[in-house]
Amino acid sequence: MTENPAPAISATNVFAANCPSRRVLDHVTSKWGVLVIVALAESSLRWGGLRRRIEGVSEKMLAQTLRTLEADGFVLREAQPTIPPRVDYSLTPLGRGLADRLIPLVTWVGNNADEIVGAG
Amino acid sequence: MTENPAPAISATNVFAANCPSRRVLDHVTSKWGVLVIVALAESSLRWGGLRRRIEGVSEKMLAQTLRTLEADGFVLREAQPTIPPRVDYSLTPLGRGLADRLIPLVTWVGNNADEIVGAG
Repeated sequence: MTENPAPAISATNVFAANCPSRRVLDHVTSKWGVLVIVALAESSLRWGGLRRRIEGVSEKMLAQTLRTLEADGFVLREAQPTIPPRVDYSLTPLGRGLADRLIPLVTWVGNNADEIVGAG
Repeated sequence: MTENPAPAISATNVFAANCPSRRVLDHVTSKWGVLVIVALAESSLRWGGLRRRIEGVSEKMLAQTLRTLEADGFVLREAQPTIPPRVDYSLTPLGRGLADRLIPLVTWVGNNADEIVGAG
């Protein structure tokens, strides 16, 4: 039954229903959460920049995703005291740590999309 | 605006709404998809073994997740010609490639869950 030795999943218990890490995993692997984190890893952006970068995201979903990622401590929201008001979104150090793990995943998916049967 | 240089997201266009890679990304980052892939990276499992490993997954969601991952070419479903019938689920080479990118993410989330504010 265990023909596939693999690196141990240490210090985590995402398989337990009530483990906080599973809730975090839900956030960071949400449809839009991944794209927001990866977009902000390229550069800090304003609201309009994020909407343009992440094609197809609705205002409602972008707002909700940013709120969740900000509450988790991944995204920093900085309102500049200018007229008109300007808000910049960027990654916190924690968010950058997350991006470092998400970028290899996203890159791999992009490189292998043709081979992945269900993608067609 | 670009204070955060980051590795380029090459050969992928997950930001485009109609790119197949985004659909694949949805599959591999689905709530249960991540847990199934990581569980099967530890060992091949039967249906009951998967249900026990992934606490809280319903029969319906597990069936749906396995179907999607099998259609994508990540999971191999092998029905043994025994009585009673026995079905083993394991990762394909493509699925193992995916697991290699998911495990660092899941491990990182587990190690940092305490620091992640929204987890509390």
